[in-house]
Amino acid sequence: MLIQPRILKGFRDSLPEQEIEKSALIKNLVKTFESFGFVPIDTPALELTEVLLGKGGGETDKQMYRFQDKGKRDVSMRFDLTVPFARYMAQHYSEIYLPFKRYHIAKVWRGENTQRGRYREFFQCDFDMVGVDSASSDFEILMMMKASLSALGVDKATIHINHRGIFNRFLNHLGLAEKSVEVLRMVDKLTKIGREKVLQGLSEYTEKDKAELILDFIVAEDSFEKTLKKMCRLAGGPGEDSQRMEDIWAMAKELELQEGIILNPSITRGLDYYTGLVYETFLDELPGLGSVCSGGRYNNLASLYSKEELPGVGASVGLDRLLAGLDEINKNNLRKSLTDVIIFNMDPPLSGQYHKMAQQLRKQGIRCEVYPAKKKLQGQFKFAEQKDIPLGIICGVQEMETGTLNLKDLKNRESWESISLAEAIEKIIAFLDREII
Amino acid sequence: MLIQPRILKGFRDSLPEQEIEKSALIKNLVKTFESFGFVPIDTPALELTEVLLGKGGGETDKQMYRFQDKGKRDVSMRFDLTVPFARYMAQHYSEIYLPFKRYHIAKVWRGENTQRGRYREFFQCDFDMVGVDSASSDFEILMMMKASLSALGVDKATIHINHRGIFNRFLNHLGLAEKSVEVLRMVDKLTKIGREKVLQGLSEYTEKDKAELILDFIVAEDSFEKTLKKMCRLAGGPGEDSQRMEDIWAMAKELELQEGIILNPSITRGLDYYTGLVYETFLDELPGLGSVCSGGRYNNLASLYSKEELPGVGASVGLDRLLAGLDEINKNNLRKSLTDVIIFNMDPPLSGQYHKMAQQLRKQGIRCEVYPAKKKLQGQFKFAEQKDIPLGIICGVQEMETGTLNLKDLKNRESWESISLAEAIEKIIAFLDREII
Repeated sequence: MLIQPRILKGFRDSLPEQEIEKSALIKNLVKTFESFGFVPIDTPALELTEVLLGKGGGETDKQMYRFQDKGKRDVSMRFDLTVPFARYMAQHYSEIYLPFKRYHIAKVWRGENTQRGRYREFFQCDFDMVGVDSASSDFEILMMMKASLSALGVDKATIHINHRGIFNRFLNHLGLAEKSVEVLRMVDKLTKIGREKVLQGLSEYTEKDKAELILDFIVAEDSFEKTLKKMCRLAGGPGEDSQRMEDIWAMAKELELQEGIILNPSITRGLDYYTGLVYETFLDELPGLGSVCSGGRYNNLASLYSKEELPGVGASVGLDRLLAGLDEINKNNLRKSLTDVIIFNMDPPLSGQYHKMAQQLRKQGIRCEVYPAKKKLQGQFKFAEQKDIPLGIICGVQEMETGTLNLKDLKNRESWESISLAEAIEKIIAFLDREII
Repeated sequence: MLIQPRILKGFRDSLPEQEIEKSALIKNLVKTFESFGFVPIDTPALELTEVLLGKGGGETDKQMYRFQDKGKRDVSMRFDLTVPFARYMAQHYSEIYLPFKRYHIAKVWRGENTQRGRYREFFQCDFDMVGVDSASSDFEILMMMKASLSALGVDKATIHINHRGIFNRFLNHLGLAEKSVEVLRMVDKLTKIGREKVLQGLSEYTEKDKAELILDFIVAEDSFEKTLKKMCRLAGGPGEDSQRMEDIWAMAKELELQEGIILNPSITRGLDYYTGLVYETFLDELPGLGSVCSGGRYNNLASLYSKEELPGVGASVGLDRLLAGLDEINKNNLRKSLTDVIIFNMDPPLSGQYHKMAQQLRKQGIRCEVYPAKKKLQGQFKFAEQKDIPLGIICGVQEMETGTLNLKDLKNRESWESISLAEAIEKIIAFLDREII
């Protein structure tokens, strides 16, 4: 009786072409993060539920993969990388210097509803700087978001930023601080349900003129400066928060990074966690996809686990969502392997010599494989095509005896006959420089 | 009330210096695997227990993290990468070409006894070639084991190989085929308990002279050829299996790879799975650590899930064990970050200009960070030391005005004063070429 080979709903296998694409993107992200002096860390996939739940009560708690292990411990698979990072900072406080800049790229698990392209296992790519509260650090995260998007090949995206502090002052000013949860929830729906419905919703909590003011507040003007000015006016004047926004904008101008960054007063990003600047990023060609890179400033990362106060700022790249978006935009023609050259097997007793030749190619940085068994040449050609291998070497007994080989461009069927291995290496390197980006 | 920050027994956090080391090793492995034309895949961390258990009954089954998910499905975290690979091949058979050469580097989980440096979460790095049974493929795995070890910086290791087929013929010849499980189990203990005790143990299953023959069989002679000759003699003559060993050894000689490979007839590697060649690797300086890279040939990978016959050969690098071994041998001085240059913060209003300078360094491939807030220079120096950053740039208002800066070698306290950014970039690149390997 065979077992039916299948996987769980909401989980995915990664085929080679998908894994090659994902690995290349992750490699580019890592390079970017490290160019800013960020260091990698890792934490366990499985932790004590008590530690991961924290105060609990959120939506994610219900989605956790939670169970009792053989030692009767209540354990769960991590559902994000933020909670484990908070626990990590508290636990390793004495081993770590501040400000601590870390990145963490790893899988997380959520038993979410699998509709609408949501998966139960997905990657998070977080980067945070903790132990500091400054305009420079807020700005650095913004720079890194931009750099990460370029590294991922996204050239048309807009980063929306806002400051929770100004919003809070504005609500205070209206006497609505107590209702902030409800108000923020309504405001968040603006793009989805439209102005009129939000106005109607807000009327449940406040007078009509205040609801109008709220709507006035959350609409962006036609420049960063004008929007900030309006926000300050409605919030009762400038403050530390608006000063921070000014400092960040001044730096953006100094580095000529303004393009693709807008001040959007309707962006709030959840309720409890963030206390300062917040960021969201939308692809210009697919805004409906949702934010592909989000984050913000928080004033106390590890408060559940430690008395040490750890202000910080960070963001997270939604790699799986972004991959889905890129596939939709580019209709990428994915590479099925990374092999540059295949050495066809003309005669199995020559295998040792084929492997020797392959080693010499590898020494020159050429990725190379030897077809491992006897097979008709037509079948070996088909194999090379299935793996998208661009070049092939044909070398039978006769060629081996004369120290020559035939090199073939497998796509254009062009070939270089009876050349030496040294000549072949030259031609291969020139070909790869020209054809492979 | 604070929650005590702690992790589960047998699990580990990875500090930056550990994660940097591990990532570098994984990167080298990936490069090696891809230079042989192997492609990456991934599978879910969580699967249906029915699928992972297979026939069940093994030791690993008891160690699985197994539970019921919210949809009442019996699920488990993967305990190796072989079973998911078998399921994957059966499930994606029609999407995949053969021979299929894949690598998979990922975490697995086992609720093992945590004594003796065993962890409950660890990495496996598997590489397999399936859909082919040839000397060339067996030899390629051997080449890859050697290449992987060099890529990991291991220069003194010995790969022990053997052929299960010859051992089986030998036992048949002795009329002991029925007792092979017990015999293999005793033979496996040779290095641990010594010749006399093994002889005594074997006597329970067979006559003394046969036990002596078994001990004679499992001892290596002083050359590959002599050992193979003896094995053939005791097994009743040469066969396909000994021919395979001869072919592999001929290729090893052709590529001058004999050094560090021995034919060890006592290596058997478990009982059910492997059917042909088997491999184990021991560090010459730490043989007691156990095998750091093992594998072998099997004749039917996916028999539990599919009627398609998939012979294959592969091996797995025990990365966590190897890391522990390397730490013991080298007492590695691990780098705490990968930052090349820190720009000290002499005056926070200059932050924008510091970030601009940093971007110019990054464009030259220099990994660089800006200290993100006001702090006494001594404190910033200490921070740079904690992160092992080799170079620093000091640039205050005065330098900024004259377009100069001071570059400092933070270890030797040497410095280059009042130079331009372009000069600094030149000096930094020269320094990194010289100092950082």
